[in-house]
Amino acid sequence: MALIVQKYGGSSVANIGRLQRVAQRVAHTYDAGNSVVVVLSAMAGVTDKIIKMAYEAVDQPQRSELDVLLSTGEQTTVALLSMILEAMGYAARSFLGHQVQVLTDSDFGNARIIEVEHEALCKQIDKKGIAVVAGFQGCDINGNITTLGRGGSDTTAVALAAALDADMCEIYTDVEGIYTADPRVCDRAHKIDQISYDEMLNMASLGAKVLQIRSVGFAKRYNVPVHVRSSFNDKEGTMVVPENAGMESLVVSAVTHDKNQARITLKKVPDQPGVAAKIFSPLAESGIVVDMIIQNTRPDGQTDLTFTVPEGDYETSLKVAKKIAKKIGADSVYGDDDIAKVSVIGVGMKNNTGVAATMFSTLAAENINIILISTSEIRISCVIDEKYTELAVRVLHSAFGLDEMQS
Amino acid sequence: MALIVQKYGGSSVANIGRLQRVAQRVAHTYDAGNSVVVVLSAMAGVTDKIIKMAYEAVDQPQRSELDVLLSTGEQTTVALLSMILEAMGYAARSFLGHQVQVLTDSDFGNARIIEVEHEALCKQIDKKGIAVVAGFQGCDINGNITTLGRGGSDTTAVALAAALDADMCEIYTDVEGIYTADPRVCDRAHKIDQISYDEMLNMASLGAKVLQIRSVGFAKRYNVPVHVRSSFNDKEGTMVVPENAGMESLVVSAVTHDKNQARITLKKVPDQPGVAAKIFSPLAESGIVVDMIIQNTRPDGQTDLTFTVPEGDYETSLKVAKKIAKKIGADSVYGDDDIAKVSVIGVGMKNNTGVAATMFSTLAAENINIILISTSEIRISCVIDEKYTELAVRVLHSAFGLDEMQS
Repeated sequence: MALIVQKYGGSSVANIGRLQRVAQRVAHTYDAGNSVVVVLSAMAGVTDKIIKMAYEAVDQPQRSELDVLLSTGEQTTVALLSMILEAMGYAARSFLGHQVQVLTDSDFGNARIIEVEHEALCKQIDKKGIAVVAGFQGCDINGNITTLGRGGSDTTAVALAAALDADMCEIYTDVEGIYTADPRVCDRAHKIDQISYDEMLNMASLGAKVLQIRSVGFAKRYNVPVHVRSSFNDKEGTMVVPENAGMESLVVSAVTHDKNQARITLKKVPDQPGVAAKIFSPLAESGIVVDMIIQNTRPDGQTDLTFTVPEGDYETSLKVAKKIAKKIGADSVYGDDDIAKVSVIGVGMKNNTGVAATMFSTLAAENINIILISTSEIRISCVIDEKYTELAVRVLHSAFGLDEMQS
Repeated sequence: MALIVQKYGGSSVANIGRLQRVAQRVAHTYDAGNSVVVVLSAMAGVTDKIIKMAYEAVDQPQRSELDVLLSTGEQTTVALLSMILEAMGYAARSFLGHQVQVLTDSDFGNARIIEVEHEALCKQIDKKGIAVVAGFQGCDINGNITTLGRGGSDTTAVALAAALDADMCEIYTDVEGIYTADPRVCDRAHKIDQISYDEMLNMASLGAKVLQIRSVGFAKRYNVPVHVRSSFNDKEGTMVVPENAGMESLVVSAVTHDKNQARITLKKVPDQPGVAAKIFSPLAESGIVVDMIIQNTRPDGQTDLTFTVPEGDYETSLKVAKKIAKKIGADSVYGDDDIAKVSVIGVGMKNNTGVAATMFSTLAAENINIILISTSEIRISCVIDEKYTELAVRVLHSAFGLDEMQS
């Protein structure tokens, strides 16, 4: 007799046949005596098709109207699933973002949830009905339709689970859970049974393909247990849960990599107070998120300053950096996008020394040069030459004892 | 400095290119100093595609969810047109049915407008913005999405024009206006410059392809001048307006035909009080709209009863009629769907006798047998053999002097 929120992604609702299978699974959960709230994405590919159509109409679609357009994707799937459930004899009803309602700010295309009204959903649950909610969408205080950004349906599901105090938020996707490394890179990678919110938050590059990172922050804040699992079989997936004692016996839980990185170096920057602000403020104003920064003092009293940005922002960043260099009197600017970031993540790190040393020596043993290093409480990341990415992931996966766990 | 409501149908917004042309026309009207409220249909074919998808999912789609699905069609076009207008430098905003809001009853799929809130639209107009409203859709008192039935965007446009006290409601379509007869049947048919609401209401078969009949009732009630015109050129179309003196100089304004008819005859019905109710109540309960009824007294004191129904309801009607016949002791039931209804319409009839006589003698001169007759104040309709339809339309068109007016 639990309240379960189930979210199905685009590939799980890609066509009528798959929607019918989703209906079976929802019905199965309901028949077991649970209350079920379903959250759906748009059919796989539909969002891209809509965006393409908008760009066919105009060069730069107005974001508020793009959201009106985009929200039709989930509107379609929730209406269809409700029909199918009704035809199967279940009392189902669709709820759009503004009907729930999912109140957001007005940052169209990337809106953040302010509040989830749960009155309408509770009514539906109370009368033993199944609520089928359009993910990814909400409305602002003026009644404008908003969307939550790529993967936003995950956040809708977790936010609903939090608002309804659900017992479980199940995220159905096309993979079986979260892995110790990308299985395409490391054939010894295996599914993780349990992972903490913080580890998940640190696994952006590995996990974001499975679960929108923003939804994990939500889950952590409201203590929502999340179960990431496949919609194509009944296997248990990965539980994303609060940190617990069992987790700490493992020093490292996963090895991630991200090739979507570029670095930019400003040579011979005059070493004077306020120079960092002069460099990074214009980048921030251009909407560029700088990831890692390193500053080397030169014998001549000047410094070299290197930072990394997402590969997609590389060209823009280079332009901005060149303007800045001129202004502050730096000698030259150069950059490249043939780098990658490899990270080891684990809540066990907190109580274990020597993780960094093991990581550096493991890479050194393979003659992999470390360009930049950054650390957090439960993560160590190294920027390396992109060509060594796969090798680095494999040797780190072995070095931290993740291979042995394979069943 | 007028307030103009412009409605564009499915063929006028069938693709991005056509939407861009619609934007040009809207901009042109706005630039001339007018306030413009635009009402759009879904792209041609989209509504049918959505219905097909729903029937692929289930045998009998739930009507409320079908409305959720259908409303995505207009949602798409209004967002796209708003984007295009914005990109052209105009302050445009889309409004969905629930945002306007267009309050309807809860008869999903065929909802009737109860009230149009105009506050949001007035705000948009007051700040010199263009409002782009999704036609065909509204919401009921519980916030459920509703749709107004085929051609419902016309009714949306007229209802908005009434609520906003607009100076003109322009209905843009793929024909140039209302014709004296179907040009495919009668090559001497020509466009009518002005037609009264009542004539238009009587022209269901001819006019409904151009203008949803329900919208004409709305226009009449609120005295909204409607201009039916082509979106593909700048020619004046047909003005649908209150009756005026000029109109009465013409006895007949148009000849219409409708092949979508079937008749059913109950033979030897016992002639006793209440028998008509026993026949027509079950038909009404089955949702069948009976059009014409004729009762012939037989020498044996019994009667034969003939009535017509839309061709689509023929099979169902026949089944119901057979059940009734058994119950009331009628002798037999037979029917056929090879009939057609030909009508002459004109407000001038009110002051002119002899229209019926001219109609009957014109048909008789061609040896066309009249099966059933019905009349209203401004219309005479005859049911004839379907095969004579085109001939009947042409000879009546000539007989009532409509040929001569051709330019």
